Amino acid sequence: MRASEPPERVGLSRLGERGLIRRIRGSEAAAGRADGLEVGIGDDTAVMTVPPGHRLLATTDLLIENVHFRTRSAAPADIGWKALAVNLSDIAAMGGIPRWALVALAVPASTEPEAIDAFYAGMAAAGAPHGVTVVGGDTSASPGGWMVNVTLLGVHPGAPRLRSHARPGDAVAVTGRLGGSGAGLHALEIGADQARAVGVAPGPLAEIIASHLRPRARVAEGRWLGEAAGVHAMMDCSDGLATDLEHICRESGVGARVRLDDVPIAVAARVAGEALGVDPRDWAVGGGEDYELLLTCEPDAAARLADGLGAATGTALTVIGRIEGRAGAVVFVDAAGQPVTVRSGYQHFQE
Amino acid sequence: MRASEPPERVGLSRLGERGLIRRIRGSEAAAGRADGLEVGIGDDTAVMTVPPGHRLLATTDLLIENVHFRTRSAAPADIGWKALAVNLSDIAAMGGIPRWALVALAVPASTEPEAIDAFYAGMAAAGAPHGVTVVGGDTSASPGGWMVNVTLLGVHPGAPRLRSHARPGDAVAVTGRLGGSGAGLHALEIGADQARAVGVAPGPLAEIIASHLRPRARVAEGRWLGEAAGVHAMMDCSDGLATDLEHICRESGVGARVRLDDVPIAVAARVAGEALGVDPRDWAVGGGEDYELLLTCEPDAAARLADGLGAATGTALTVIGRIEGRAGAVVFVDAAGQPVTVRSGYQHFQE
Repeated sequence: MRASEPPERVGLSRLGERGLIRRIRGSEAAAGRADGLEVGIGDDTAVMTVPPGHRLLATTDLLIENVHFRTRSAAPADIGWKALAVNLSDIAAMGGIPRWALVALAVPASTEPEAIDAFYAGMAAAGAPHGVTVVGGDTSASPGGWMVNVTLLGVHPGAPRLRSHARPGDAVAVTGRLGGSGAGLHALEIGADQARAVGVAPGPLAEIIASHLRPRARVAEGRWLGEAAGVHAMMDCSDGLATDLEHICRESGVGARVRLDDVPIAVAARVAGEALGVDPRDWAVGGGEDYELLLTCEPDAAARLADGLGAATGTALTVIGRIEGRAGAVVFVDAAGQPVTVRSGYQHFQE
Repeated sequence: MRASEPPERVGLSRLGERGLIRRIRGSEAAAGRADGLEVGIGDDTAVMTVPPGHRLLATTDLLIENVHFRTRSAAPADIGWKALAVNLSDIAAMGGIPRWALVALAVPASTEPEAIDAFYAGMAAAGAPHGVTVVGGDTSASPGGWMVNVTLLGVHPGAPRLRSHARPGDAVAVTGRLGGSGAGLHALEIGADQARAVGVAPGPLAEIIASHLRPRARVAEGRWLGEAAGVHAMMDCSDGLATDLEHICRESGVGARVRLDDVPIAVAARVAGEALGVDPRDWAVGGGEDYELLLTCEPDAAARLADGLGAATGTALTVIGRIEGRAGAVVFVDAAGQPVTVRSGYQHFQE
């Protein structure tokens, strides 16, 4: 090698920032022509049209390596999927229609371009079924690990479902089943091999890990519930049932009473809990990241809503309690009606 | 101290995440009632209404400690100001009206709540003159330094000014003067004391540092130029004149020729350049972060546009060159018309 020969370029220096942006712009995640998009990646801002009579929805979520995920267990495609899915879930919780994503991504300069491709492919896989397109973003070298920020914009043809609309006497209900994501995180933290070694069967293990790494936002369910008569407050289960229901109660100035035995637990989480010696209700109530929808509704409407949602989407709706009691207080009770202490959700900045 | 006494809480553990969000929600940055805002911080998404006949604009920018700024020289209020200002500039470059901001903020857990207050106060100071309100966001503990992502939404009553609209024969023009931010960064990197020691006078020093830490987005100028007849392409000068003009040329399929001597240089940058032994044109052409507007227009319209912009906003518009030559090529020439090599702008992921 002659001294004048340039050093072999590694990682993203193979592309440079402009090459990286060109590559993102050509990716499947950005290539879709979302409804109402006029100008996507490549100008100072994206330009879009909100349909007449529709409101605009906007939400943003930050995912940071070693805080929200570990690259040891989450592949770039998983990170891309989840970064979009958690935002899809926020739009779903309003009953809205997700549309346009802006993606800010900082990665170490040593990252290979193929990892970036996989990240956007994961995002495309999560977004394409909902017609979501990446319309803008920012890229940066990171002095630490991966950092992803996704802002998702959506539209809403009617009145969004708010956290503040719960009323005394409402039934409290949740879509699907909880605990899968918490169980998956537990398995990933001890290591999938170790989880298998203590007896978690491959099927349930794969299922709980997928629940954690590739959550499915309840977009169709949110749209249906967002238009159904009798639904009052709605939000998504991201911090854990106990914490999320507290949010609804605080914003609505009401309390809630939940029958712990009625909380629907994911079957794979039950199976994994037995092998791992963990009460799966801890994952369901305090684990978070299941991205099911939590709502309150007219008590008389609950059965009709469950039937209708099941018919429209195949997803169950389970009544787990009632809006009642002191404002801001969420009480979990056992089969005998006695209060029980439950694990609460994760908060940043707590010791 | 008894063993059962809890440890004294420091940094953000004094608040916890919920307390932090309450504090942000009550801040001046979020307290403004922006036009069209229906639901701000506190629900799954923000809810807004875009005025009839208006397009929606969206842009996002990531600022990372030790990549985009250093906490040694940028106070939390400066970081908040700049994180919003760089996005205001993107909306300005389209000729749009900035409105609603979503702010994702990750900081070390040891950060004191007062630093967060200062960050949002800086953001409020940058945004309030333009009626911009923080409508949503996310917070996280950071395993490294500060990370800020701002997504800014705006509206546009007409046709946004795009990078792709330059035409052969257009005049190339720029608002204000360039180089102040690059000079300020240079002074901060060597240290303000050292800059003073080599003879940069206090007045110009303060001015160039302010240009770097507290850039003023040309929002009113962008609105005026966005509606003026004869303006074709427009963008903001964030990466440096050479790189930014290349973006316009590439998107428009044209070339450009710039007379280096006609590029307007900030007076304080000239003064600082003399003391620091730096050609201030390097800062003007390659430094970036001046957040002036760069545009192309009908050559016959340039004088009228300069007069009109000056009358409406007090800001100068200077013609610096012409759209001509090979597609994608930006050539800088000296007084004799001979090509000169200039410093190009910063790109992430380059060695």
